[in-house]
Amino acid sequence: MSANPVMTLAEVNAFLAREFPQIALGRDFVVEDVGPLSARLRLIFSDRHLRPGGTISGPAMFTLADVGLYVAILAQIGPVALAVTTNLNINFLRKPAATDLVGECRLLKLGKRLAVGEVTLLSVGDPEPVAHATGTYSIPAR
Amino acid sequence: MSANPVMTLAEVNAFLAREFPQIALGRDFVVEDVGPLSARLRLIFSDRHLRPGGTISGPAMFTLADVGLYVAILAQIGPVALAVTTNLNINFLRKPAATDLVGECRLLKLGKRLAVGEVTLLSVGDPEPVAHATGTYSIPAR
Amino acid sequence: MSANPVMTLAEVNAFLAREFPQIALGRDFVVEDVGPLSARLRLIFSDRHLRPGGTISGPAMFTLADVGLYVAILAQIGPVALAVTTNLNINFLRKPAATDLVGECRLLKLGKRLAVGEVTLLSVGDPEPVAHATGTYSIPAR
Amino acid sequence: MSANPVMTLAEVNAFLAREFPQIALGRDFVVEDVGPLSARLRLIFSDRHLRPGGTISGPAMFTLADVGLYVAILAQIGPVALAVTTNLNINFLRKPAATDLVGECRLLKLGKRLAVGEVTLLSVGDPEPVAHATGTYSIPAR
Repeated sequence: MSANPVMTLAEVNAFLAREFPQIALGRDFVVEDVGPLSARLRLIFSDRHLRPGGTISGPAMFTLADVGLYVAILAQIGPVALAVTTNLNINFLRKPAATDLVGECRLLKLGKRLAVGEVTLLSVGDPEPVAHATGTYSIPAR
Repeated sequence: MSANPVMTLAEVNAFLAREFPQIALGRDFVVEDVGPLSARLRLIFSDRHLRPGGTISGPAMFTLADVGLYVAILAQIGPVALAVTTNLNINFLRKPAATDLVGECRLLKLGKRLAVGEVTLLSVGDPEPVAHATGTYSIPAR
Repeated sequence: MSANPVMTLAEVNAFLAREFPQIALGRDFVVEDVGPLSARLRLIFSDRHLRPGGTISGPAMFTLADVGLYVAILAQIGPVALAVTTNLNINFLRKPAATDLVGECRLLKLGKRLAVGEVTLLSVGDPEPVAHATGTYSIPAR
Repeated sequence: MSANPVMTLAEVNAFLAREFPQIALGRDFVVEDVGPLSARLRLIFSDRHLRPGGTISGPAMFTLADVGLYVAILAQIGPVALAVTTNLNINFLRKPAATDLVGECRLLKLGKRLAVGEVTLLSVGDPEPVAHATGTYSIPAR
């Protein structure tokens, strides 16, 4: 379960920019790395993602986790079939700092029909996680 | 556990417009009703919430569920203390239709420290749920 | 999505007694009813399911929810393929009373590959839920 | 957030044997280690935990995860107040082997009121996880 991904970082970013213009790659989100069953994304700190008190909103963190797991699957199997989120569970642990947020994504299972992964969200420069998510994705028949 | 809320619909909307301008009340989200331990919100269908294929995105549905439960708690206990999401679990069940999405929110527990609720998300005019979420909120000491 | 189940209550109970002797049907668990996309199960109060303080344990409540959703799927589609739990999320809301616990199970989706349902757990005689669970089940190709 | 636990492994085992006789320590479950914000437990393979096909049942895996996180909290803060599970989310990833199951437990947050942790469940001798769980625990005022 640890083969190399079939897409490079550049190929992933080109695919996302073309297919998901809403994600605002390079403005809101940056895919920093893809590896065997893993990916790292960054949410650029901005007014657009804040809730009262100036902290990053729950929906922005949900998006980082969801896109991150989608990217880890995409890079591993390629754009032959688009995975669809079926479940996402997120625990909010601490108030994020007023800085970028990084999502470390790791696939726990990559089956023929289902993929499951986990994401740890960290404020840049702080080792204590801000949030943690697990997600399940349905992979269409190829 | 079924007393009437302490805030009216108008008071809830005024509070949200003042405190959460990011939610874009009236443009993206509308609080349609609040009742005993319950609330109903509507996500206005728009290009801003779409993913490829023209369906409403997972993050937009997450936001509807999260804001809906927040509103149900807020209306019930008033703006004396701001509830914070600690966990949200969402199951995506069907592809939403190209129309508004309604979130029917119901609190299962409203304790001194924790509130737990569930949300059923429905495309307007279709009785089959599009998604279902449960969430936990921490209520600061009052 | 609301056709009648293909198995009767008696057929479900006979199947479970034969295939799942560990569940101790009639001693620990009773399937009380099956209906369109729904089932009701009862956990018989007993010393075997207690944790300190004399309340029903979390694992016993998990089992009631998991078996309940399994039964709702089984009754609806028949024993042609055995569903497998892929995700279960449970919120514990209140201390259960020292009495039987009932699980009201409802399927939110019954697709070809995945079924999703929710369970409300109630102490007999008390309208406030003790716990609430949602679960996802993989259905093998038939 | 990484201080040493206040209880030794022997103290944890003595506490559990006295307070949770249902867990059948030494017969069904063994606490193998406790460390800073972490614990490792083993579920001894036995007929009592099987489902059809001879694999370890979902409820037995739920119990391993739930007890494991409870133990990690207990060892860290001591038996001054008993933590109560408020949420547990478990993903079942692969069919477990016919052997003991180990739960590697790690606390992601240990606050004054809430603790959150994750558990990876592994069949002994196989690096691919069998299941993964996250749980939230309420800690009474001390």
